Amino acid sequence: MRRYILRDENAVYYECGYSNDNALFLRLEDAAWLVTDSRYTTEAKEAVHGAEVVEASDLIKAVRGLLRTHRVRKLVYDPKEWPVEALEALHSKLPRLFLRPDPAFSHRKRMLKSPEEIALLARAAELGREAFRAFGAYVAREGVGLSEKRLHFVAEGILRREGAYALSFDPIVAVGANAAKPHALPTERVLRRGDLLLLDAGLKYRRYCSDRTRTVYVGDEIRFGEDQRFASPRIQQAYDLVRKAHDTAIGKARAGMTGAQIDALAREVIEKGGMGEAFVHSTGHGVGLDIHEMPYISKKSQTVVEDGMVFTIEPGIYIPGEFGIRIEDMVVMRNGRPEIL
Amino acid sequence: MRRYILRDENAVYYECGYSNDNALFLRLEDAAWLVTDSRYTTEAKEAVHGAEVVEASDLIKAVRGLLRTHRVRKLVYDPKEWPVEALEALHSKLPRLFLRPDPAFSHRKRMLKSPEEIALLARAAELGREAFRAFGAYVAREGVGLSEKRLHFVAEGILRREGAYALSFDPIVAVGANAAKPHALPTERVLRRGDLLLLDAGLKYRRYCSDRTRTVYVGDEIRFGEDQRFASPRIQQAYDLVRKAHDTAIGKARAGMTGAQIDALAREVIEKGGMGEAFVHSTGHGVGLDIHEMPYISKKSQTVVEDGMVFTIEPGIYIPGEFGIRIEDMVVMRNGRPEIL
Repeated sequence: MRRYILRDENAVYYECGYSNDNALFLRLEDAAWLVTDSRYTTEAKEAVHGAEVVEASDLIKAVRGLLRTHRVRKLVYDPKEWPVEALEALHSKLPRLFLRPDPAFSHRKRMLKSPEEIALLARAAELGREAFRAFGAYVAREGVGLSEKRLHFVAEGILRREGAYALSFDPIVAVGANAAKPHALPTERVLRRGDLLLLDAGLKYRRYCSDRTRTVYVGDEIRFGEDQRFASPRIQQAYDLVRKAHDTAIGKARAGMTGAQIDALAREVIEKGGMGEAFVHSTGHGVGLDIHEMPYISKKSQTVVEDGMVFTIEPGIYIPGEFGIRIEDMVVMRNGRPEIL
Repeated sequence: MRRYILRDENAVYYECGYSNDNALFLRLEDAAWLVTDSRYTTEAKEAVHGAEVVEASDLIKAVRGLLRTHRVRKLVYDPKEWPVEALEALHSKLPRLFLRPDPAFSHRKRMLKSPEEIALLARAAELGREAFRAFGAYVAREGVGLSEKRLHFVAEGILRREGAYALSFDPIVAVGANAAKPHALPTERVLRRGDLLLLDAGLKYRRYCSDRTRTVYVGDEIRFGEDQRFASPRIQQAYDLVRKAHDTAIGKARAGMTGAQIDALAREVIEKGGMGEAFVHSTGHGVGLDIHEMPYISKKSQTVVEDGMVFTIEPGIYIPGEFGIRIEDMVVMRNGRPEIL
């Protein structure tokens, strides 16, 4: 498949090392073009490799011109990334062009990471881990008495290191029962001794994302590691189950399994512990330029996991009104097994 | 038009006071539904007004069910906001449903602001102005010697007030020649005495955006007001022209003019000053839940501007490799004239 068009920022970046919020990437066999507007052409020309930079005020019209010049009859596009209107504009004056939909073809290409990409993801994960450590130290020192909103702001500042890094996503900082919402927004709820605290956060290193979650007990001591002693036996039991599910999936996953098989490794542990219904999401997702990409580690995923893929393992247990627990690490498949990044 | 579907977050919020990153809003005459997944139903039920909350894992399937139950034959959608794949999924099992494209119908509805919305936008603008003042004080005190990247981080922190507010957009902080790119990304360029400094930034107050730009001279004193004295006569001349264009557009715009006519008020000043080619963008854009919405104040805009509309006036002059200048305020049309918010 060598004749395609892309508009998603990360998909475009993957092809030519550059993108912005108003660019199209066109590949026709060995030739490629990055089409963007005059605000961006200076920086585009500095950064793009393997493609010619075309400046245009109407990007789609410029692409139509290229398609006409090269007499293109068939072009692949991703129906997930093209709004109806933009696709119609592309088609409008080229009625004989066959636009072939191929959902997520860029994500499929990007599923197998190169050694360079794995190194960037490892560095992102390391910076993410350091941020968790620094956040833990902050919470231990002065976090008790602060609201989730304030802790969220602190976490952002630590992850971003004074603007050096962008965030992979809006961090989740949740205390006690708020952690029972897997996508909790921070509230005015104040952190107290004896609370449970969940942090799910990541940063981007040269555009590659990290993703990590820890759930900790805010006792006299606070440690952001995986060893946790909760005052509540019920929470401790759930925590131990999540940890076992996490460790089991990482310990037993092998290249050649499907995403569904790896999901089942974690899910069965929690089901056997009698809390299967409280594990309301999938076990993991690929991570790369996008925070969520292939392979998905879910009940339905038939993707075969192979060496060079990077994804999360993040089982959880959520009891509405009471608590939520999740432990998440990024792994890379190497020599047939997952290694934590 | 009372039978429509929306998926854009701000469009959905406008209809029912709530939205998230995985929700659909369906209106069929007097009945309306907010369809979202189980992660969000608790908070949705607390916040949604005027619509029933429906929980579903497959949102589009749930909407198809509602359309079938109510025997809907015709439904309006916005082809700008629907990806090809999602629209096809909606259509797939309802072959007799006529999906009528109506580009930007939500933006058209939202163009005339209610008094409550204008109050929120005025508050956002006031908070934005305060942030500019605080940033100016910071730069005067300790900004000289810092990089654009560092100043960008500081500006973000000031705008966000320790996490109390979200940003309207990634702020633009540009020094000297970098300001010649209207959408400059911050670099390692360090701010020195004698430099020109441009800040274009805004924050959200209860989801409503502010937007403001000032270009200032970093002399012995630094003031973020509109009175500026640059060392370079060439820059001063351009600055005075931009200021005159800004003041003229705000002074002479009237309800009943088109966006193009208001654009021309600013553009003619700069053209008469002999720098028309350096004013490379349009004069302004509407502001509301989205940072860019209708009415557009551009050469081509045939939208008639009326009382209750809120938009920016932001002429600029950009000389590549030398400098860039822009002055931007938000205005509301009231009693037939623009008032600065």
